[in-house]
Amino acid sequence: MFKLSLPSLILLTCILVAQTAFAEDGYEMWLRYQPITDSQQLKNYQQQLSHVVVEGESPVLSAARAELEAGLGGLLNRSVTTDNKIKKGSLVIGTPANSPLIAGLKLDERLAQVGPEGFVITQAKVNKRNALVIAANTDQGVLYGTYHLLRLVQTHQDLTNLSVDSAPRIQYRVVNHWDNLNRLVERGYGGLSLWEWGSLPEHKNPRYTDYARINASLGINGTVINNVNADPRILSDQFLEKVAALADVFRPYGIKMYLSINYDSPRLFGDLDTADPLDPQVQAWWQARADKIYSYIPDFGGYLVKADSEGQPGPHGYGRTHADGANMLADTLKPHGGVVFWRAFVYNPDIQDRFRGAYDEFTPLDGKFRENVILQVKNGPIDFQPREPFSPLFGSMPNTNTMMEFQITQEYFGFDKHLAYQGPLFTENLNTDTHAKGPGSTVGKILEGKVFNYSRAGMAGVINPGTDRNWTGHPFVQSSWYAFGRLAWDHTLSAEDIAEEWIRMTFTNNPAFIEPVKEIMMESREAGVNYRNPLGLTHLYAQGHHYGPAPWLDQSGRADWTATYYHRASKDGIGFDRTSTGSNAVAQYHPPVRDVYGDLKRVPEDLLLWFHHVPWTHQMKSGKTLWEELVGKYYEGVEQVRTMQKQWDALEGMIDEARFEHVKALLKIQERDAIRWRDSCVLYFQTLSGLPIPAALEKPQQSLEHYKTLERTHYVPEPWHPASSSRALR
Amino acid sequence: MFKLSLPSLILLTCILVAQTAFAEDGYEMWLRYQPITDSQQLKNYQQQLSHVVVEGESPVLSAARAELEAGLGGLLNRSVTTDNKIKKGSLVIGTPANSPLIAGLKLDERLAQVGPEGFVITQAKVNKRNALVIAANTDQGVLYGTYHLLRLVQTHQDLTNLSVDSAPRIQYRVVNHWDNLNRLVERGYGGLSLWEWGSLPEHKNPRYTDYARINASLGINGTVINNVNADPRILSDQFLEKVAALADVFRPYGIKMYLSINYDSPRLFGDLDTADPLDPQVQAWWQARADKIYSYIPDFGGYLVKADSEGQPGPHGYGRTHADGANMLADTLKPHGGVVFWRAFVYNPDIQDRFRGAYDEFTPLDGKFRENVILQVKNGPIDFQPREPFSPLFGSMPNTNTMMEFQITQEYFGFDKHLAYQGPLFTENLNTDTHAKGPGSTVGKILEGKVFNYSRAGMAGVINPGTDRNWTGHPFVQSSWYAFGRLAWDHTLSAEDIAEEWIRMTFTNNPAFIEPVKEIMMESREAGVNYRNPLGLTHLYAQGHHYGPAPWLDQSGRADWTATYYHRASKDGIGFDRTSTGSNAVAQYHPPVRDVYGDLKRVPEDLLLWFHHVPWTHQMKSGKTLWEELVGKYYEGVEQVRTMQKQWDALEGMIDEARFEHVKALLKIQERDAIRWRDSCVLYFQTLSGLPIPAALEKPQQSLEHYKTLERTHYVPEPWHPASSSRALR
Repeated sequence: MFKLSLPSLILLTCILVAQTAFAEDGYEMWLRYQPITDSQQLKNYQQQLSHVVVEGESPVLSAARAELEAGLGGLLNRSVTTDNKIKKGSLVIGTPANSPLIAGLKLDERLAQVGPEGFVITQAKVNKRNALVIAANTDQGVLYGTYHLLRLVQTHQDLTNLSVDSAPRIQYRVVNHWDNLNRLVERGYGGLSLWEWGSLPEHKNPRYTDYARINASLGINGTVINNVNADPRILSDQFLEKVAALADVFRPYGIKMYLSINYDSPRLFGDLDTADPLDPQVQAWWQARADKIYSYIPDFGGYLVKADSEGQPGPHGYGRTHADGANMLADTLKPHGGVVFWRAFVYNPDIQDRFRGAYDEFTPLDGKFRENVILQVKNGPIDFQPREPFSPLFGSMPNTNTMMEFQITQEYFGFDKHLAYQGPLFTENLNTDTHAKGPGSTVGKILEGKVFNYSRAGMAGVINPGTDRNWTGHPFVQSSWYAFGRLAWDHTLSAEDIAEEWIRMTFTNNPAFIEPVKEIMMESREAGVNYRNPLGLTHLYAQGHHYGPAPWLDQSGRADWTATYYHRASKDGIGFDRTSTGSNAVAQYHPPVRDVYGDLKRVPEDLLLWFHHVPWTHQMKSGKTLWEELVGKYYEGVEQVRTMQKQWDALEGMIDEARFEHVKALLKIQERDAIRWRDSCVLYFQTLSGLPIPAALEKPQQSLEHYKTLERTHYVPEPWHPASSSRALR
Repeated sequence: MFKLSLPSLILLTCILVAQTAFAEDGYEMWLRYQPITDSQQLKNYQQQLSHVVVEGESPVLSAARAELEAGLGGLLNRSVTTDNKIKKGSLVIGTPANSPLIAGLKLDERLAQVGPEGFVITQAKVNKRNALVIAANTDQGVLYGTYHLLRLVQTHQDLTNLSVDSAPRIQYRVVNHWDNLNRLVERGYGGLSLWEWGSLPEHKNPRYTDYARINASLGINGTVINNVNADPRILSDQFLEKVAALADVFRPYGIKMYLSINYDSPRLFGDLDTADPLDPQVQAWWQARADKIYSYIPDFGGYLVKADSEGQPGPHGYGRTHADGANMLADTLKPHGGVVFWRAFVYNPDIQDRFRGAYDEFTPLDGKFRENVILQVKNGPIDFQPREPFSPLFGSMPNTNTMMEFQITQEYFGFDKHLAYQGPLFTENLNTDTHAKGPGSTVGKILEGKVFNYSRAGMAGVINPGTDRNWTGHPFVQSSWYAFGRLAWDHTLSAEDIAEEWIRMTFTNNPAFIEPVKEIMMESREAGVNYRNPLGLTHLYAQGHHYGPAPWLDQSGRADWTATYYHRASKDGIGFDRTSTGSNAVAQYHPPVRDVYGDLKRVPEDLLLWFHHVPWTHQMKSGKTLWEELVGKYYEGVEQVRTMQKQWDALEGMIDEARFEHVKALLKIQERDAIRWRDSCVLYFQTLSGLPIPAALEKPQQSLEHYKTLERTHYVPEPWHPASSSRALR
């Protein structure tokens, strides 16, 4: 029988209590390490992971060891001993280079397959005893294997005969923060910026380490810590010293530091009167800055650049191309091994169709970028809408290293107020076949670099967490962060499997909880589409803040910042004609994609109004008219939220009260907002269609005029926006 | 012998661990309830507080019971049982009205003395058994007594023969928040506003309850939750619904809800084209709003008003007086029992001496305010400077209810970066004798309402905590909050005793820690004075943010927003002549105060330059010249910080690492800033005095020009300020 001494029993029980106490506010994300409650399962794991052997010494290995001590200590309900004696049930971690034990296992072939960041987890005889081994070619791989093993235990997987060979499919797995230096976060809904500039470098908040752990557990290997609308001060000496302190914290977790830079920095610093990338003085300025950065951060990753986009400066201001601009920077980083992420989010105000902007701008430059430039392309052609077709740049830049940019922060998904698991959105885009080099040229495969033999490719996610105790505001925004990271490692995973992992690690392994919550999550993105912009409608948001609806919006700073620009609704119908009779943006896709999207009969109905202007009476596959279908979708969206509420409310008592009540309250807000979206859009479109809302449906709660008033007067939670304090009343 | 069963032992140890886990980030403030570690002491308390008897039912009593369960559960390391059976060592709490046990104790005389909010704690025979009793006239008094008893245990006081009769000396004990509705906090350095407007009223963050507990534990009985620079939307229906949800959370803790209002609301709501207080339409508008507020919050406390001050609208705009403005509002609240806190922080740009502003404005109106108006006067005549003489309005408004406003948030004390315990500042002002009605007319006594027989009087503290995990940014800002609350209850307490209580509750009862930390705290305010503005200098801050030094500042929006306005330094000397040869502000004090302050020979040297313009060669009591003394003070300030650092660093290991390292890092920043202050001021004043820095002192680290550059380029942590993102570079 397995026996515990009294002190052990006390320690063990205490860990349980302490863990529970910590867990209730969401701070620990998916690294909660709750004790296994099934006693047989616990016993099995305790035998299989009796103690830990780490040979070699490095900051990364120390991080792995610390994680095992915290993780196994919590999960297995006892303190973890680490020494170099092999026992039955030892866990041995290391690389052939730093661990003679690992070197002796002859894993060379398997290790050769998993590359510099991958790992092998396998049962093996070590010194004639059965042991579990995490082996990798680098300490970084060992750390990733450590998190993988912990995930298996967290989700109660069987370790018997375990054999895992895993390597990331995508090379650059990067999170982006849109944090301003005054600590306001653009499109951030989880508090102030995590980076406490005022007390850096002196004070390293312990939270920085937890941030690194959270990302490393997913295999994230880079972070851009400041807003793409970049404050030039980030490159000043005083800030580089602060940035270096953060880089020091992140380094043992394999997370490289990148910075967003302001293209006009040489001018804004007051050193030059130009930022022309072909000017030798400008080149020298940037070279000196790069050298300075690397003197602070020897493994600095590189720059992220938003240039000539939404008012940001760029090479166009000097009559130069994006390639000129990117290459000049890339050349200054090249000697140090850095890269430039150059954003393709460019759409000039004078173009006929914003959809076409990035493609028209960048395809002529294909092949003109340096090898250490990676073009960072948003997943869709417009801007992180709840549903977009994939950007036609994926598949159209065969000679330009390319990466994808997803948005995890819910700018268009109800901020921190609505539940919207974006796993299905990510996989929808990643799995779409671009047909760029025949069938099988999926977006995901392009990001692997395999379709076009890119030397560098990647995936970036705009995460925008903040000082809120649970990082993301809505507890379920954590799930999209989790899904992003898991898919950046392996884009072939399913959104549903990822959701289940996340639920198990974040809440509980209780199946009575997992199944309904998985249903809620898998339904949530489509619900968000339905009550906002179904059937391929897009961008009907109130201007600026993007929270509530304003389908009537027809005046703004730019035509493509209005809603009417996108829906083009009139008495004769609705939708944006992007076929050859319209903007012909559809021609930016390869056949057969362009043919399917361009054909009213074949286009998927959920993208219908993205590509076609269609009469209100158009007959849909359901047999209903477009009007009826559209109205039906809006109503369905609200019903989906109501179902989510019922499902959630039935889970009371299965998890801690704090998170349960929080989500419950937020779902109430979501229902209220969904009704407002539904009514605003249906009533507004009705003024154009002139058609009735089917009698079987509940009446709109308020008049169109009322909802129009709300656009001006309803409080919008948007702390980052200075103008938010001067909104109108009532 | 006292014996524990195994389950009890486990539970007990677990509480210890869980408490420790929670405690390390400062979230629990002084309500940490750490287990008593001395076993004899623990045993004594366990016997003296064996279980809890609460007769009667009310939300306030439930709050008291919950606090005892949490508090004694933690402190005594075991779960607390509550039922109505008297045992040996029972703690019986209640009022004669709701508890027959209490009613039977014949405490009537003692209870009569402690009034509606006070309490009696006493050993008594209850049902023939020795019990400890917390008795009060109201449930609110019971709650205050509960916190008092917990404090005694937290600070390890002996309960044998305990007999306490306590009542607040000051009636209105109110905290003020300067929170904007977009959640940015003006002069707040602890994160975003605590009030999550976007998810209220649906979601009541559990933190709201902890906020109420923290304040109630000090006896705070009111809170003004929004900025005095008030967004009119706070009075809209949508916000009142949110405010009411907060009021519901605060009510069981005896904390009344007050709101800052914008005087022009009737106009800004678009309902009227005037806000003239004598216009019947305006009166009707405010009456309707008041009725509406009370329909949401039946026990609403009233308004705080900043009118005709720093650009805020007010009655002057309509040719009316402050009394006209305040009385109109007071009349609309009167039927509901509400009050108006009317701020006296008024200084017109055209006056000769800002010092004189409030007095000149308000003394002519003495006696003209309604009974339910209370004039809220800042402690000093200028604006929360590290040292100010008391405001001459204290003692000059015999017929106007008056309260004091202190600032806890460190606008002028280094934000969340510098350690500055303000207990000594508060007591310095409170204990000063105004001589308004002869000797003994201290400021504190005026606030008791006793000098002038005010029907209402009080103390307000601007606290500005935020979403930072530890509420206040710098852990030691908590101590000033604590001191404010304790002094509002009893202004005769000493700053040192309060510091000790706070240290014991917040960190540890270990004397080896208490003594040096108490020294640090007691020294810290004077250190802050010395390195910023010794000998009665004041307001030498960089414009706007008030963090770093700019004694050279001579241009600004207003003359009294420059530094030169205050120090008046020139070749001939330094200081503001406020005697009869100058602005004669000193005449606003009663004799003999005016005579002492006005007499160069008698004025306390730490107020010298507040009242006198003095030659650089003036001989000080020390025998040094003014110049030497001034330079010496600046250098002393830096040395004090260095001593604080050494003292703190020696405490490593006595408390949790997280808070230890945080404070240590902040003290490094404070030393850096103190040097910058010292050098900036000494080098700048030297350009005028032409005198040498004594050779024995260390040389300034940088040139004056360098420090002037820093004013523009050095990063200032000021998230609330939108302009902070456009500061110059390097």
